[in-house]
Amino acid sequence: MFTRTKAFELLQALSSHPIDLTHPGALTPERIGSYSIEALGFHLLYGTERVNKEVIEALCQLAKESHALEKMRAMQAGEVLNRIEGYESENRSVLHTAMRDVFDERQTAPAAKDASDRASRELHKLKKFLEETDGYTDLIQIGIGGSDLGPRALCIALQAFHKPHKKIHFISNVDPDDANAVLKNVDPKKTLVVIVSKSGTTLETLTNEEFVRERFKATGVDPKRHFIAVTGEKSPMDDPSRYLASFYMWDFVGGRYSATSMVGAVMLAFSLGYDAFEEVLKGAHEMDVHAREAEPHHNLPLLSALFGIWNRNFLKLPTVAVIPYSQALLRFPAHLQQLDMESNGKRIDKEGHPCPFSTGPVIWGEPGTNGQHSFYQLIHQGTDPIPLEFIGFRKSQYPKDLEIQHTTSQEKLLSNLFAQSLALAIGQKSENPNKFFPGNRPNRILLADQLTPKTLGALLAFYEHKVAFQGFIWNINSFDQEGVQLGKVLAGKILGLFSASKAPGKPTSFPLGEAYLKYL
Amino acid sequence: MFTRTKAFELLQALSSHPIDLTHPGALTPERIGSYSIEALGFHLLYGTERVNKEVIEALCQLAKESHALEKMRAMQAGEVLNRIEGYESENRSVLHTAMRDVFDERQTAPAAKDASDRASRELHKLKKFLEETDGYTDLIQIGIGGSDLGPRALCIALQAFHKPHKKIHFISNVDPDDANAVLKNVDPKKTLVVIVSKSGTTLETLTNEEFVRERFKATGVDPKRHFIAVTGEKSPMDDPSRYLASFYMWDFVGGRYSATSMVGAVMLAFSLGYDAFEEVLKGAHEMDVHAREAEPHHNLPLLSALFGIWNRNFLKLPTVAVIPYSQALLRFPAHLQQLDMESNGKRIDKEGHPCPFSTGPVIWGEPGTNGQHSFYQLIHQGTDPIPLEFIGFRKSQYPKDLEIQHTTSQEKLLSNLFAQSLALAIGQKSENPNKFFPGNRPNRILLADQLTPKTLGALLAFYEHKVAFQGFIWNINSFDQEGVQLGKVLAGKILGLFSASKAPGKPTSFPLGEAYLKYL
Repeated sequence: MFTRTKAFELLQALSSHPIDLTHPGALTPERIGSYSIEALGFHLLYGTERVNKEVIEALCQLAKESHALEKMRAMQAGEVLNRIEGYESENRSVLHTAMRDVFDERQTAPAAKDASDRASRELHKLKKFLEETDGYTDLIQIGIGGSDLGPRALCIALQAFHKPHKKIHFISNVDPDDANAVLKNVDPKKTLVVIVSKSGTTLETLTNEEFVRERFKATGVDPKRHFIAVTGEKSPMDDPSRYLASFYMWDFVGGRYSATSMVGAVMLAFSLGYDAFEEVLKGAHEMDVHAREAEPHHNLPLLSALFGIWNRNFLKLPTVAVIPYSQALLRFPAHLQQLDMESNGKRIDKEGHPCPFSTGPVIWGEPGTNGQHSFYQLIHQGTDPIPLEFIGFRKSQYPKDLEIQHTTSQEKLLSNLFAQSLALAIGQKSENPNKFFPGNRPNRILLADQLTPKTLGALLAFYEHKVAFQGFIWNINSFDQEGVQLGKVLAGKILGLFSASKAPGKPTSFPLGEAYLKYL
Repeated sequence: MFTRTKAFELLQALSSHPIDLTHPGALTPERIGSYSIEALGFHLLYGTERVNKEVIEALCQLAKESHALEKMRAMQAGEVLNRIEGYESENRSVLHTAMRDVFDERQTAPAAKDASDRASRELHKLKKFLEETDGYTDLIQIGIGGSDLGPRALCIALQAFHKPHKKIHFISNVDPDDANAVLKNVDPKKTLVVIVSKSGTTLETLTNEEFVRERFKATGVDPKRHFIAVTGEKSPMDDPSRYLASFYMWDFVGGRYSATSMVGAVMLAFSLGYDAFEEVLKGAHEMDVHAREAEPHHNLPLLSALFGIWNRNFLKLPTVAVIPYSQALLRFPAHLQQLDMESNGKRIDKEGHPCPFSTGPVIWGEPGTNGQHSFYQLIHQGTDPIPLEFIGFRKSQYPKDLEIQHTTSQEKLLSNLFAQSLALAIGQKSENPNKFFPGNRPNRILLADQLTPKTLGALLAFYEHKVAFQGFIWNINSFDQEGVQLGKVLAGKILGLFSASKAPGKPTSFPLGEAYLKYL
């Protein structure tokens, strides 16, 4: 499908001679000014991508030929997009957007309406619960994957807005050192523990729950009065005899898309207060509406997805660095790594045929300016070009700043962001080969005013939709994750070997596993 | 040089038909048992790499033809390896190994001996300083790049061994939110502040220093009695009138190799106590001796470097994921990202010729089991194979663990590590294309007993030497970083635009920069 569009052929022809940004006169102030779109307070500046008007036209044509916008609308309306035709698959709607469709202008399609009604009910439950339980000072979230990376990234991003004396902790890894390190620092009597598992059966999460329950009991604290379940309705964890409260999630919200469901809501509303948390939802909802309504040329996540496809499939670049010039977004790339790589790291299309092209790239990144003193060396002068997605903000979160030599720290930060974008594009000629910079490193900047709860919600949704658009255009299923199963099966066999050594009568024959255990 | 070795030709021939690990009978318990070496308590298990005995022989021949061991010995003896022949370059020795060559069996070459004598002097100063200043509860380290990522990774890795009531904080980013977030949580009266900059001129670090000085003064605390300099002897920061103490670093220790110099020492000795910190140095020193003495077949970092080259230059895989199955190593991949990508992200060889082959790959990673619920989807079922380097430990750091269904959390962690290594190699056949795993994802495991200060020191040095060996074999300079300069120059120009707008009389003509400023 993707490779059989007319736009694909056109783009392939165009990719044999992409614009040379190092050429004198190629990157002008006019180009920087006109290669830019704006919506919801976000500017996307893409003059430093290796595209010209022809390429952009062809990319937008690709979006049209692959019905990207129609699929986004269908997704938000609750159509069953999570499936592989002709094979056993999850067969589900994909309705994370309904989790924040709780304001005006709601979707009216029945599946979407039902989902947003459910979301509203949980939000009301949560608001009431928090009013009734204001005495707690700490909250431990136990979850892994989508129940950890997204919430953790948002929590760190909004630390500047946390209420004083509300502290958040996370336990995710089955490594016992993870739980032990957190438990050193909390007083069980004042601590809520939120267990997050949609199925109610996640090995790491249930293990850590038991670990923490035992520790609470050992200090004379009754877990029943401190533990909260975030889980599927009727899952094994949906059990009022064991939890102070249960909040629900559903199979139409995938783990990596669940940060605005109760998975992120309980922790964020506890730390920020309910009203500030609602701003996160508002920001995400506005981006949802924009993503399904704006035409390709003016659609922030769609245009961003198209540049990604240009760099991946036509300029043949296998990785993407996401670099926020904001220390608060320290763990946001780790969330995006999951979101993108778990969604689009697929080798078959929606009809089950192997894809004859590259799908999801490796996504990685760390905040700037830090990265400039680290891996930027390779980005500037390594043998492989790496496309970059920069994120920046005009203002800092905290009001305090200091002017040194006529510029504030925030101005220094922004100067570095703009300078890197230019340096990567234009490079530098030199007689000394060690001072030669090849340039033509494609990059773009997403610029907003300030990282607030609302902006963060919009930024989160921007990336969710960028990823979904790329999946729509590649015609792959961005919403399942069959690739995690095989490891689970083999881990179970090796666990069988460990337990058989202690509880005879459970033999497991797995010679490859036994070969590893000899090293223990 | 690299492409003109006999081994290169041989390896290229062998790479046309690498072993198929998915073939029944290819990956046997015997292979797992015999494709393994052990030294200093570390096992390197490489049965799941796509190599056979012929490939390993050819790789070891490559090491010999490129004089990898001789160069490692020359480096540790203090030869001037940081240079490009025929062009202006740094022209320095590379003596981070001397920073821990402070025990028996010292190097006797004059340059190395002089460097280790200097290191000993600083260590004695540090020990005495800490005895005299025991009252402080908190330490803020201000630095960026090598003065931040390595120390931060080590600090987090050893949190289980920190003295109670000694807390460490880091400020790195010029983003004012970074400093503000840290300053919220410390009491200046009880806090030491360590400023780390070899040149004494790093923009971010000096800016943050002033930021924190102002805040200390505002609370009535005299910075002179709290601030410590870690800097080059005679740098602008080597100024007793402004600092309580100065500890020295030298130009023969690169930032990304400086974690065992005073750059990491002050913070680690403060938090762990001096004796436990010395264990880090001992572990690193033992690995230094191993790296220069063990023959290629039995040399942990050299063999690891060779597998890296096999995957990069012969199997043509552009990235490497480093996955520690240890939550304590959460930020270790970020350190390795800098170490490897800044060292080997180079496009010219040591004679200034463009390299006609790929050098340093993109290095990225997050701890397991967390990654299994995130980007592993792409690693198992994406379109591009990604080589993995796993790190594991037999025991957890904290003694407390809990047995659930006959296995402890630590056993669950190790089961997952071994299971993933196997699953990635052997894959899975299936009629359902979505349950098909192609396998042949090359990976290896570095397994040690427990993550202690000593093991961590050895692990740090293992990676320093793996990176250096790859650079030696590629014949590139792994010790400079010209690629950071261009960004600094352009950032300076844009900063000029900001300050000109406030302090007229400093005009800067930079239309590209002005084009960006219009978005502010």
